[in-house]
Amino acid sequence: MGDAALPKEHILVAFYEDLAPDVLEALRVKFSPVEVSSIALKRGEAIPSELARQVTYIVTFTNLPNPEDAENIKIIHFLSAGLDHSIHHPIFTETTIPLTSSSGVHGPPIAEWTLMNWLVASRKFAYTYEDQKKHIWRGNVDGHLQRIHDQVGKKVGILGYGSIGRQIGRVAQALGMEVHAYTASPRPTPASRHDNGYIVPGTGDKEGTIPVSWHHGTDKASIHEFLSLGLDHLVISLPLTPQTTHLLGAKEFALLAANTRPKHPKPYLTNISRGKVVDQDALIAALESGDLSGAALDVTDPEPLPAEHPLWEAPNVQISPHVSSLGVEYLPRSLDILKVNIGRIENGVDLLNEYKRGKGY
Amino acid sequence: MGDAALPKEHILVAFYEDLAPDVLEALRVKFSPVEVSSIALKRGEAIPSELARQVTYIVTFTNLPNPEDAENIKIIHFLSAGLDHSIHHPIFTETTIPLTSSSGVHGPPIAEWTLMNWLVASRKFAYTYEDQKKHIWRGNVDGHLQRIHDQVGKKVGILGYGSIGRQIGRVAQALGMEVHAYTASPRPTPASRHDNGYIVPGTGDKEGTIPVSWHHGTDKASIHEFLSLGLDHLVISLPLTPQTTHLLGAKEFALLAANTRPKHPKPYLTNISRGKVVDQDALIAALESGDLSGAALDVTDPEPLPAEHPLWEAPNVQISPHVSSLGVEYLPRSLDILKVNIGRIENGVDLLNEYKRGKGY
Repeated sequence: MGDAALPKEHILVAFYEDLAPDVLEALRVKFSPVEVSSIALKRGEAIPSELARQVTYIVTFTNLPNPEDAENIKIIHFLSAGLDHSIHHPIFTETTIPLTSSSGVHGPPIAEWTLMNWLVASRKFAYTYEDQKKHIWRGNVDGHLQRIHDQVGKKVGILGYGSIGRQIGRVAQALGMEVHAYTASPRPTPASRHDNGYIVPGTGDKEGTIPVSWHHGTDKASIHEFLSLGLDHLVISLPLTPQTTHLLGAKEFALLAANTRPKHPKPYLTNISRGKVVDQDALIAALESGDLSGAALDVTDPEPLPAEHPLWEAPNVQISPHVSSLGVEYLPRSLDILKVNIGRIENGVDLLNEYKRGKGY
Repeated sequence: MGDAALPKEHILVAFYEDLAPDVLEALRVKFSPVEVSSIALKRGEAIPSELARQVTYIVTFTNLPNPEDAENIKIIHFLSAGLDHSIHHPIFTETTIPLTSSSGVHGPPIAEWTLMNWLVASRKFAYTYEDQKKHIWRGNVDGHLQRIHDQVGKKVGILGYGSIGRQIGRVAQALGMEVHAYTASPRPTPASRHDNGYIVPGTGDKEGTIPVSWHHGTDKASIHEFLSLGLDHLVISLPLTPQTTHLLGAKEFALLAANTRPKHPKPYLTNISRGKVVDQDALIAALESGDLSGAALDVTDPEPLPAEHPLWEAPNVQISPHVSSLGVEYLPRSLDILKVNIGRIENGVDLLNEYKRGKGY
C-alpha cells in the first residue's frame, strides 16, 4: 500500500511526423485501455527523458530513449523489418529491454509490387497504356503484342526465402509457377522450413511447403548451382551484408542466361532488397546483351538514382523509387505485432519477432 | 482384305493464316505418328472437299467441312471457348461428329491480365512509369503515392465462376483475398462445384474449394443480393446472352457502392466477358461519380472503341483492345485438349470439353 503507483500502460509512437488524428484515434481504440500518444522526432533523435519515463511501450523507426530513462519500458517495437541501423545504441548494448521488429509486414505489398512488374513486362502493358492515352484501339493487328507469354510452368528462384520471398512464392504458385527457395543456412527438416515470425493472416508460406526445392549456402559455388536451375525469374530478397554485397554480377548473370531452358525467354531479375546486392554495371551490360530479358528494381545504387544514370534507359528495366512496401496497411499491421506481444509479455510467453541480442540481425 | 484402306490419321489445322514452320513442326512432333497439315482460310470459309475427305481431325475457329465430306472426321476441335458462332451450321444440325471446345485455355492469361490491372491501379503504377521516362526518382515526398492499399482481406465477387473465374479466384486467394462465386445454376454439393472441363495444369480451382461463399440465380434479385456483399472487386466473367445483356447498370453500380465496407475504396470493376454485359453509359457515370473506384476493361461496346468515345477518358479506367487471352501458349494448350481426346475416342471414353448438341453452349 505504500509502494509508488506503477505507471499506467502507455504506448508512445515516435515517428518522423505527427500521426494523423484519425490514425491516432484508431490506435487508441485498438489498444484500449492502454493509452497511446505520439511525438514527431527527427531521424535518430532521442526520446525526451520526461516522456520516456512516462510510458511503457515505444513504437519507432530510429528514436530511442536513453537507457537511464527506460526502466519502465517493457517493449520497444521497431517499425522496420531490420534493426541494423540501431544495434550500436546503448539500448541494444547496455539494456535487456525486449526489442521487436516489423518483419513480416512487408510480404503482401512487396509481393504485389513484384507481380505487377512481372505482368507489366510479360504482357507488354506499356503498349496498351500508351494507346489508351491516344484513344487507339490497336488489337493485335500489327503484331506488337506477339510473344506475350504467361507464367504457367515458369521457374522462379527466390534468393532469401523470408516473409517477403514466401508471399512471392505463394502468389507464384497460384499462377502455376514452380518455386525454388534459397536460404543462407540449411533447412533440411520440415520444422526448419517453418516461418516462426509474424505473418499477415491469409498470406505467406508458414509451413514452407510451397517450394519444390530448397537450396542453401553462403559460398559462391552454392549460389552458382542455384542460378543454374534453368530459372525464368530470379528474385533477390535477402539482406545486404558484407557477404551479399555485389553477390550478383557478370558471372552470375551469364550463368542464369546460359541455363535458360529452350524456347524460354531469358531470365528476368527482380530486386526488392538493396541496390548494392547487385553489381549494377554488370546488370546494365546483361540487359543490353539480352542475357537478362528484363529487370524490376525497387532499389538502386545509389538512391536516389541520378537523372543521368544509364540504368534509367537500360533495355526492359522497370525502376521504382524504393516504394514497394508502401501502403495504408503498414502501420496497423506493424502494431498488430505489438498488440500480440503486449498479451504475451503479460503471460510470460516468448515474444513474436523478438530481436536476439548478439545474433546481429 | 478387299475393304478400302482406312484413311491415315491426319489432323488438319484450318486457321486464318498459315502456321509458322516451327509451330507446324512442333505439332507434328506432338502428335506423331498422326500427320498434321495446315491451310489458311478466310473466316467462315468451308474446308475444300478433297482436303476434308483426306483427314480425320479438324482444328479450327470457323472453318468447317460440308457434311457430305465429313464421314471420316472423328473430332472437330474448335480453338475458341464458345461455339455459338457456328451452331447453325449443318455440321452441328445434321451430323453427330464430336465437337470440342477450347474452354479452359483462357484461365491463366486472363487471370494475369486481371491481376496486372488491379495492381497497376491500386499501386498507382502510372506515376512511377511516367517518372522513369523522365528519369525522376520521386520517392513518396509529395504524397502522390498516398492511399496505396494492398489486396489482403479484400472481397472479390466473381460473376461466372468458370475456368477463367476460377483462376482469378486462385490468384486472389493467394493474395489474401476472400473469393465469392456466382453461377447461373445452383451448386449446392461438392460434386456440383467441380470443374469437369480442361484445366491448365497447376492452375484453377478444380474442386471448387476456393470460394468462401457460393451464390446463384438468373434473376435480378439474386444478382442484387450478390452485389450487396460488401465487395471490393467485381469480376464479370460470364457469357453474353440475351439474359446477361446490360446485366450491370446504374442500379447495380449504386448497390455495389452503397455496400462498400467502411474505410474501403469503392468497388473496382473488371470486365473480361463482353462489352454489352455492361450498360456502358451507366458505367461512365459510376466512374465519374466515384461510385466505382475504377475499372479494367478488355471489352467494350462497340469494338473497336471509337477514338471520340467518352469511355477512353472516364476516371480510373484501364482499357485494352480485347487481348487479355493472347499468348504463345494458346495454340499448344488448345491442342493438348485434342491430344487427350484422340486417346479417349480410341478407348471409347467421354471426350473432354465436348459440345452437347441442343444445350446451346
